[in-house]
Amino acid sequence: MKILKVKASGEYDILIGEGILDGIADAATPVIRGGKAAVVTDSNVAPIYLESVLDSLKRKGVESFSHVIEAGESSKDLKHLGALLNAFAEDGLTRADVVIALGGGVTGDLAGFAASCYLRGVRYIQIPTTLLAMVDSSVGGKTAIDLDYGKNLAGAFYQPSLVLCDHSTLSTLSDEVFTDGCAEVIKYGIIADAELFDRLKEPIKPQIEDVIYDCVRIKRDVVEEDEKDTGLRQILNFGHTIGHAVEKLSSYTISHGKAVAIGSAMISRAAAKRGICTPEYAEEITELLSSYGLPTFTSYDPGMLFRAAVADKKRTGEYINLILPVEKGRCIIKRTPFSELEAMIREGME
Amino acid sequence: MKILKVKASGEYDILIGEGILDGIADAATPVIRGGKAAVVTDSNVAPIYLESVLDSLKRKGVESFSHVIEAGESSKDLKHLGALLNAFAEDGLTRADVVIALGGGVTGDLAGFAASCYLRGVRYIQIPTTLLAMVDSSVGGKTAIDLDYGKNLAGAFYQPSLVLCDHSTLSTLSDEVFTDGCAEVIKYGIIADAELFDRLKEPIKPQIEDVIYDCVRIKRDVVEEDEKDTGLRQILNFGHTIGHAVEKLSSYTISHGKAVAIGSAMISRAAAKRGICTPEYAEEITELLSSYGLPTFTSYDPGMLFRAAVADKKRTGEYINLILPVEKGRCIIKRTPFSELEAMIREGME
Repeated sequence: MKILKVKASGEYDILIGEGILDGIADAATPVIRGGKAAVVTDSNVAPIYLESVLDSLKRKGVESFSHVIEAGESSKDLKHLGALLNAFAEDGLTRADVVIALGGGVTGDLAGFAASCYLRGVRYIQIPTTLLAMVDSSVGGKTAIDLDYGKNLAGAFYQPSLVLCDHSTLSTLSDEVFTDGCAEVIKYGIIADAELFDRLKEPIKPQIEDVIYDCVRIKRDVVEEDEKDTGLRQILNFGHTIGHAVEKLSSYTISHGKAVAIGSAMISRAAAKRGICTPEYAEEITELLSSYGLPTFTSYDPGMLFRAAVADKKRTGEYINLILPVEKGRCIIKRTPFSELEAMIREGME
Repeated sequence: MKILKVKASGEYDILIGEGILDGIADAATPVIRGGKAAVVTDSNVAPIYLESVLDSLKRKGVESFSHVIEAGESSKDLKHLGALLNAFAEDGLTRADVVIALGGGVTGDLAGFAASCYLRGVRYIQIPTTLLAMVDSSVGGKTAIDLDYGKNLAGAFYQPSLVLCDHSTLSTLSDEVFTDGCAEVIKYGIIADAELFDRLKEPIKPQIEDVIYDCVRIKRDVVEEDEKDTGLRQILNFGHTIGHAVEKLSSYTISHGKAVAIGSAMISRAAAKRGICTPEYAEEITELLSSYGLPTFTSYDPGMLFRAAVADKKRTGEYINLILPVEKGRCIIKRTPFSELEAMIREGME
């Protein structure tokens, strides 16, 4: 088992290992400190892991409650937030108690936000069960729900008290969901770690613990530097500007990972066209993504992609911060006029 | 005009004066820093002050939006929170923009919480227009909404960027609403300021600016010491344990101020019976409250009061922290078994 320490507005450990879910209470009880636990999970994860988590807590004498939400992004809304908050109140949770988010990004975002506002904040533990949640959403304290007007528009910066990544849970994911997480993994290589980038050319599963560790370490370093997302943290958005546009145009039928892969490849090709990186490197990025079965092109019209990319940024001015690859393991944040972004989207299509 | 500086997780100024609302934008524009402003107010306050606030902002070139909620506690719920968040999104508010809460405690609590979670936090300005909001809810960063299970159960500790107390707005309050705020004003004398306590025996209105300043200064000092309400901040709950029970039993037909006055008088009489303060001092507290037209007795059954007081505290153990008066300007926080609280409620009735 590997341990990473995070020092943000809260200090906490991230444990990464195999099979730690069976003894989850061993790791969690020092954090729970005699309190009760409300376990939040979704309808996909509950049948596989909920019982063993509750059993483990029970063996340690932790009084627990469980709340199962419907799997899927549609649960990440105000209605489900309200239901969860009222459920915590019905459980009689106090500020001495703990919320446990067991599942993927939706569960973590929703339960984390609920924990941040119930009684103005109770502690919470993230137990991510997807690769995407392990390397991205469970670390860094960004919690959120969606509003009618868009995704993740309401939430809190609220750090967990513990993150437990048991990568044996990845074995129960479909290939598609696993591959989705790989797009974010490759992103970390591109933005911060040339050695990781090269290692990802070898099969990922035999080295998964090291890979998760490297990704989480990079994210940890970025979050410690810029917890509230006012500067450096934007680097984590590599591939996401065009990626979000692809997601939106598909009405979210194209998954986040696939969309980010398309966005990563497109922005890299555009960067190469402008001499920001070499064409060989842009090609290497595209090939790496493809080798994981991830898409690197889209047939959406570039004008539509541009409009979708800037739709929710209209009022911040006519500029957008783009993350551009320079060389393996290094990106820059470039303030870019909207007109240039549109040209770059066209260049990225070629 | 008086200025108080607060240094909590955020640093900000509290301005206290007469007529500052007319030039609200003079004070607010340095905080708004070129952003847009979403003014949230209620159906009572809007007809009186909204136009002049919007005009003042307009004269300074600040683009503004306004959102009027129905006056009353029932607006402090998840439904109205959601409506406000979606309205901010529709306005196109970004992290560079500002929410302005113009009104009493309900408006401040709801708009402040909405500001804390919209885009994971935008800045907000409190412009309290009731005495209660000026001396209590607008200062200290406690924001909240009510859940089905009780009041203020979801929210955030989120400091405003500026508080503007224009006490000329108090002239448009009914006597009843003004008197309601006086219960909290007297509380500050009891917990922290013997000199304030004695000055309150003189008519309050001619000295209102000094009185508000003293109350806010005391609250500021407490909040700086214990922003997240884990210890000292409990001192602000003087009179509130029994007060909340009275409010609840009346289904909130007895106002917060009146209920706190009853709670203050009762706990003082009980403290005197136990030799924690003198009977003369307890009598002096009761007389001061009465001189403001505030009630100091209740006819609710003591057993019912006790059960209402501990209802939402059952699971924290069989103890409750009571704030007890020792001498003028000084209270203690005493961990008290439930059984003793019940006896004290009976003693407070006599």
